[in-house]
Amino acid sequence: MALIVQKFGGTSVADVEHIRAVAAHVKKEVDAGNQVAVVVSAMAGVTNQLVDYVDQTGKLYDAREYDVVVSSGEQITSGLLALVLQDMGVSARSWLGWQFPIETNSAHGKARIEGIETDAVLKSINGGEVAVVPGFQGVGSDGRITTLGRGGSDTSAVALAAALGADRCDIYTDVDGVYTTDPRIVAKARKLDKITYEEMLEMASVGAKVLQTRSVEIAMKHGVRLQVRSSFSGETGTLVVDEDEIVEHELISGIAYSRDEAKITLVAVPDKPGIAASIFGPLADANINVDMIVQNVSADPEHKATDLTFTVTEADLERAVAVVKSHEKDLGYKDLQSDGDVVKISVIGVGMRSHAGIAQRMFQSLAEKGINIQVISTSEIKVSVLIGEEYAELALRALHTTYGLDGE
Amino acid sequence: MALIVQKFGGTSVADVEHIRAVAAHVKKEVDAGNQVAVVVSAMAGVTNQLVDYVDQTGKLYDAREYDVVVSSGEQITSGLLALVLQDMGVSARSWLGWQFPIETNSAHGKARIEGIETDAVLKSINGGEVAVVPGFQGVGSDGRITTLGRGGSDTSAVALAAALGADRCDIYTDVDGVYTTDPRIVAKARKLDKITYEEMLEMASVGAKVLQTRSVEIAMKHGVRLQVRSSFSGETGTLVVDEDEIVEHELISGIAYSRDEAKITLVAVPDKPGIAASIFGPLADANINVDMIVQNVSADPEHKATDLTFTVTEADLERAVAVVKSHEKDLGYKDLQSDGDVVKISVIGVGMRSHAGIAQRMFQSLAEKGINIQVISTSEIKVSVLIGEEYAELALRALHTTYGLDGE
Repeated sequence: MALIVQKFGGTSVADVEHIRAVAAHVKKEVDAGNQVAVVVSAMAGVTNQLVDYVDQTGKLYDAREYDVVVSSGEQITSGLLALVLQDMGVSARSWLGWQFPIETNSAHGKARIEGIETDAVLKSINGGEVAVVPGFQGVGSDGRITTLGRGGSDTSAVALAAALGADRCDIYTDVDGVYTTDPRIVAKARKLDKITYEEMLEMASVGAKVLQTRSVEIAMKHGVRLQVRSSFSGETGTLVVDEDEIVEHELISGIAYSRDEAKITLVAVPDKPGIAASIFGPLADANINVDMIVQNVSADPEHKATDLTFTVTEADLERAVAVVKSHEKDLGYKDLQSDGDVVKISVIGVGMRSHAGIAQRMFQSLAEKGINIQVISTSEIKVSVLIGEEYAELALRALHTTYGLDGE
Repeated sequence: MALIVQKFGGTSVADVEHIRAVAAHVKKEVDAGNQVAVVVSAMAGVTNQLVDYVDQTGKLYDAREYDVVVSSGEQITSGLLALVLQDMGVSARSWLGWQFPIETNSAHGKARIEGIETDAVLKSINGGEVAVVPGFQGVGSDGRITTLGRGGSDTSAVALAAALGADRCDIYTDVDGVYTTDPRIVAKARKLDKITYEEMLEMASVGAKVLQTRSVEIAMKHGVRLQVRSSFSGETGTLVVDEDEIVEHELISGIAYSRDEAKITLVAVPDKPGIAASIFGPLADANINVDMIVQNVSADPEHKATDLTFTVTEADLERAVAVVKSHEKDLGYKDLQSDGDVVKISVIGVGMRSHAGIAQRMFQSLAEKGINIQVISTSEIKVSVLIGEEYAELALRALHTTYGLDGE
């Protein structure tokens, strides 16, 4: 007998008919002799409707009241799923965030889970009941409802799995697993059987939005075995696990891309100590997240000037340019160039730790296709390059073949 | 400075624009220097939608989960009203049932309030905040959300007013007060300035559904001064108060009617001890509420038989007939006659305690119009008659004139 946490997103619980299909997934585990806790999102469209109501109340809203309004979406689904399970003969009850309690900090609208009191729920589960839990919510240290930010139901599920000491956390979604790359672009993309937490984190952080990043972090920290699988088929999905669980590592597990990138280049910045801090300090103050940073060696050592390129999200581009320009005098650069038509391509794999030449093969492959690399950044298990947006598909397909990832 | 509880129903909070109008009513009291707690219903249509979802899950549903689903409607409204108030510069926060807590018994779906912990809320109100409270809900002794039954928000408001020791409880609704009779039928009906709790209870129990009966009972028990007033005008409504507060009593305060009546007559029932119990026992067991009962004196003392007539709601008529017929042998009546085309007309007024002849004037007035009285029942402050349904309007208008209630 295993204890399994299942999580279903908004499209999986869009109406009572869909909820019945979700209940069938739950019943299947119960019939197999397993104990189950289910985490559910709001019915598709409900959260948007509630957020829209809040938006109509005024521009500067109180996040505590936002949480009161928006958290009701998941509350509705959890009651309905408990009812449908009961109707199918499965003993079940709902547990709202304040009933555990699922304790969070008081950062309303984007709270972090700090602890989950599981005694009562475990007693109920051990008594043979399925626990149905609204995702995305908890109760703050102020005793008021908190929400975890959009997509927070993944985090709820993984945190619950960790607290319950669950054997597995199944994230049911509209894709049937994690792929070597986006199958909409690369027809030969393959579904992975297993992937490590680190790889999943890198995949998520560069745009493969199968799982919320924080949920993977929590899973890694607590060793929760995650499975990404489809709500619409009974098939096994992709297991996200510790590196030790994967015997045969592929060199490269996947290739991710992100179009939400923009590049800013400062030409001929004075090459003196502290100059980087005086550029990135103001950007940090403005809450602008800087991703890749490349500083070229001074082309002309006599003039002590250097070119500096960095990337931000496309949404932040305009603000970032404004922030830098407002410090133009202090910085003393000659020219500012910005470009939103770029894409970041990343090859990811824990195997590259023990293999040299991974980056080199990437550069070679892109060069052969005549693709110019604008910026490079590397981490222990990832190599990312920034290229012109129009080359995205070409680059993905070439690299997928280069690293031997193509399926049948 | 007074402490006022205001209650707004579903049509008053139908969307954010309507909620803004509600907030203006709240702000008016705040600007006048008063402290305010507001009780809100779900946005019009939301509760029906949620109940419909629950109905789709199966026929025999768990009332505890029903409460989880359905209570979210009021939760949404309370968050939104707090936000709108803040946007209008009025300090406000929502208080959910479990946050007080508003303690109820565990009769889910139709729970009764047993106590309200007001310390935290009073502290907030004394600190200058408007308290926004979702009506219709509390938390049971099992620690789970309960609801009070449809229309329970009136009860929430009055119970809260009692617990807070409020100076007044204003029930905002789509009528501008309590009338001497239904103004849709009698054009000369007048709005009453004041009415006693007892009269309001009798009015409510015979069909004038302005206030939920239980809310009036609680108001009477705790001496809460109730005001029924319109959300769509700024005018004073009708005060429901203790008898002592009304100096000049009208003889009759109002005339109510109920079309939801049906009559059953058992002809020639043996006139022996215990016969009434053997008729009404089975009806009570079947949860059928019997209202008026009339037993005629035996017409023929030799045969020791009597005619017995009683009324039930129209909805219960078919079941009541079936229950009685299933005991036909034991009861030994000769014939059973039933009639759903009847209406109950009631004249109501605490003044009749000290005045004789009120009933006589009623019978006289109806006789003059050629209306046959089928059943009569009286209480201390009410005389009710059952007449043919087609005479309802005629009787109401005649009685309204007879008792001097006609306005300009």
